[in-house]
Amino acid sequence: MSGWAEWFAAQRAARETAGLQRALRPRAAGDDLIDLANNDYLGLSGRPEVRRAAAGAALRWGAGAGASRLVTGTTTLHAELERELAGFTGRPAALVFSTGYHANLSAVSALADRETLIVSDAHVHASLIDAARLSRATIRVVAHNDVAAVRDALSAAGGRRALVLTESVFSVLGDAAPVDDLAAACAEHDALLVVDEAHGLGVLGDGGRGLLHSRGLGGHPNVVMTATLSKSFGAMGGAVLGSPALIDHLVNRARPFIFDTGLAPAATAGALAALRVLRAEPGLPARIHERGAALADRLGVPRSAGAVLSVPMPSPQRAVAAQAEALAAGVRVGCFRPPSVPDGISRLRITTHVGLDDARWAHAVDVVARVVESRPALV
Amino acid sequence: MSGWAEWFAAQRAARETAGLQRALRPRAAGDDLIDLANNDYLGLSGRPEVRRAAAGAALRWGAGAGASRLVTGTTTLHAELERELAGFTGRPAALVFSTGYHANLSAVSALADRETLIVSDAHVHASLIDAARLSRATIRVVAHNDVAAVRDALSAAGGRRALVLTESVFSVLGDAAPVDDLAAACAEHDALLVVDEAHGLGVLGDGGRGLLHSRGLGGHPNVVMTATLSKSFGAMGGAVLGSPALIDHLVNRARPFIFDTGLAPAATAGALAALRVLRAEPGLPARIHERGAALADRLGVPRSAGAVLSVPMPSPQRAVAAQAEALAAGVRVGCFRPPSVPDGISRLRITTHVGLDDARWAHAVDVVARVVESRPALV
Ligand SMILES: Cc1ncc(COP(=O)(O)O)c(C=O)c1O
Ligand SMILES: Cc1ncc(COP(=O)(O)O)c(C=O)c1O
Repeated sequence: MSGWAEWFAAQRAARETAGLQRALRPRAAGDDLIDLANNDYLGLSGRPEVRRAAAGAALRWGAGAGASRLVTGTTTLHAELERELAGFTGRPAALVFSTGYHANLSAVSALADRETLIVSDAHVHASLIDAARLSRATIRVVAHNDVAAVRDALSAAGGRRALVLTESVFSVLGDAAPVDDLAAACAEHDALLVVDEAHGLGVLGDGGRGLLHSRGLGGHPNVVMTATLSKSFGAMGGAVLGSPALIDHLVNRARPFIFDTGLAPAATAGALAALRVLRAEPGLPARIHERGAALADRLGVPRSAGAVLSVPMPSPQRAVAAQAEALAAGVRVGCFRPPSVPDGISRLRITTHVGLDDARWAHAVDVVARVVESRPALV
Repeated sequence: MSGWAEWFAAQRAARETAGLQRALRPRAAGDDLIDLANNDYLGLSGRPEVRRAAAGAALRWGAGAGASRLVTGTTTLHAELERELAGFTGRPAALVFSTGYHANLSAVSALADRETLIVSDAHVHASLIDAARLSRATIRVVAHNDVAAVRDALSAAGGRRALVLTESVFSVLGDAAPVDDLAAACAEHDALLVVDEAHGLGVLGDGGRGLLHSRGLGGHPNVVMTATLSKSFGAMGGAVLGSPALIDHLVNRARPFIFDTGLAPAATAGALAALRVLRAEPGLPARIHERGAALADRLGVPRSAGAVLSVPMPSPQRAVAAQAEALAAGVRVGCFRPPSVPDGISRLRITTHVGLDDARWAHAVDVVARVVESRPALV
């Protein structure tokens, strides 16, 4: 047996002992389970308008973009989506990527280099952590949502260009970042604040325009917004939103943009259709907060800033058992274990959905409450 | 003006002086240009079967996968594609990613860490370079296709786990890697050879099964294959193919897999349909080589190992001018300038397409030959 086979086996054994081994479980089309694990909070992925737009684009344009956006992979669909995304969020310009991961890798690695200081919130998403590493900048990780620590770190930048990384709604714990104070700190030090609105776009702010828009930071020159098209927008892809000079810089310098095939037409059109549904139904995001608040109160956990409710569990094994119990009752919930949790605490991650009708939502809430209430018995 | 605005402006001015400034140029659906710049070599993106499969999946499953593959983003479609990809390439197992870039980032960063040695061919793709950086391994770059240098580097590994990175057909120059010798060197040193078949799958080997399959390396335990679904397969996405233990390791450890939304149903189904077309028409890839050889001979450049013909130009500005000349005559060709070229030489990149009928192909060849023949006058 080769050393590699031994290494794989040893790593797997260690995961099994720790209760951290995972496997993929394919789901079938149209299974009747209620999915409170996905991030399609508004149910737009399955909206007839969105499905039809995605299908229509595949028929009209083909299954792929064929080349890098810089070669012949940019279609008028991409340009249309970029224009509407910028308009919706109140940002001057936008650039669309294949994934939210690509958007974060691109924004950070094209803005930072060995001479840059990156100040990163301790809870940021893996894609921002990888992005910071890729840039080869000096990285200072500061305590979660600690604006004073960010200020201190920026004061010590010594004239270097500096970036501050955060999320608007954090993906696992569901809390929000103090973006006003962070933007003010960045403006003082002429640093750029990169805010990942993956879980804020479509959820927070007027009609789902995001946390930055709601705080009047849409056009702030020191704020760069990144986002995904794979969550509230129900499709796939990512975006960076900011000044035209920033976008021009990314087009010319961001390796995960330049050296990657453009986002497929179906996903591009699906996201565009989702954005238009959201414009036409601006009351949709508010329903997330109504449902979410009631669910949090029922479960006895803190309310979420967005659509993500986090329920701490005593161990990874117990989290998995609770998830299985919910599944047996017809409800999928997320189960996050190390390394997918910023604080090492395993938890159920339950997302609020407004695509479900009242009866199905009420049923789901009952199942979740039962599973969570039986928690003490699990310890 | 902030320091950032000044920095963007200075960077742009430097690009303009060097002739390296780029901008996106959206193309319209159904424009009548012949596209010899994209990587849809077999024309499968626009095949009716492929378009319809992508559209059907969007209607059936919705526009997005909704969540990470490890949460609820794995559908039976993903599993089906993985099974068929593995069967087609003769590899034991496969894992599908959102992009080829994600596949490379994942394979390398999950296999290598600070204790690993990575030996990388000097011409590998940006995604493999970024992957190596992300892993924090020690990186030794060796001369292009230099097997002796790879052996020397592996001999000096001193018992560390080691990876060797290469492509089967190189994306810009179109030459092939000596995969037999590299696999033998890796087997001797118990290193893993990671071969990116982005431009080999669908192009080389029996019915397009890739270079590794054609060399009997399909099941080689020291060889990991990566691929994209965005080139010959005409869709979007990536894949890693290897042992079930490797795939299990990636599912559990590859951050750009775990923390990314699953590939959208339309792209997944599109790639699957393309694979089935290729199975049904195994003679398709051979036509690439016929057309490509004739084109290379006509242009007086070396024949390509795959579908990518590289035509060196005297300067970036002249490359851009030649590209514009071809475009004016109705043919899009690629124009690669630093930083998209491994050797700093600007070039036209012309891809061989078998989706075009004979008349359109002949016309395209005439246009390209005219533009390339006027090259000396450009100096
Ligand atoms: C906060 C955050 N940023 C970025 C991403 C990556 O987005 P995508 O799935 O579109 O790659 C995710 C989740 O997947 C996320 O939760
Ligand atoms: C050799 C090679 N590997 C990987 C990639 C990335 O694949 P994708 O475009 O699917 O991200 C590309 C091109 O885009 C490539 O040319």
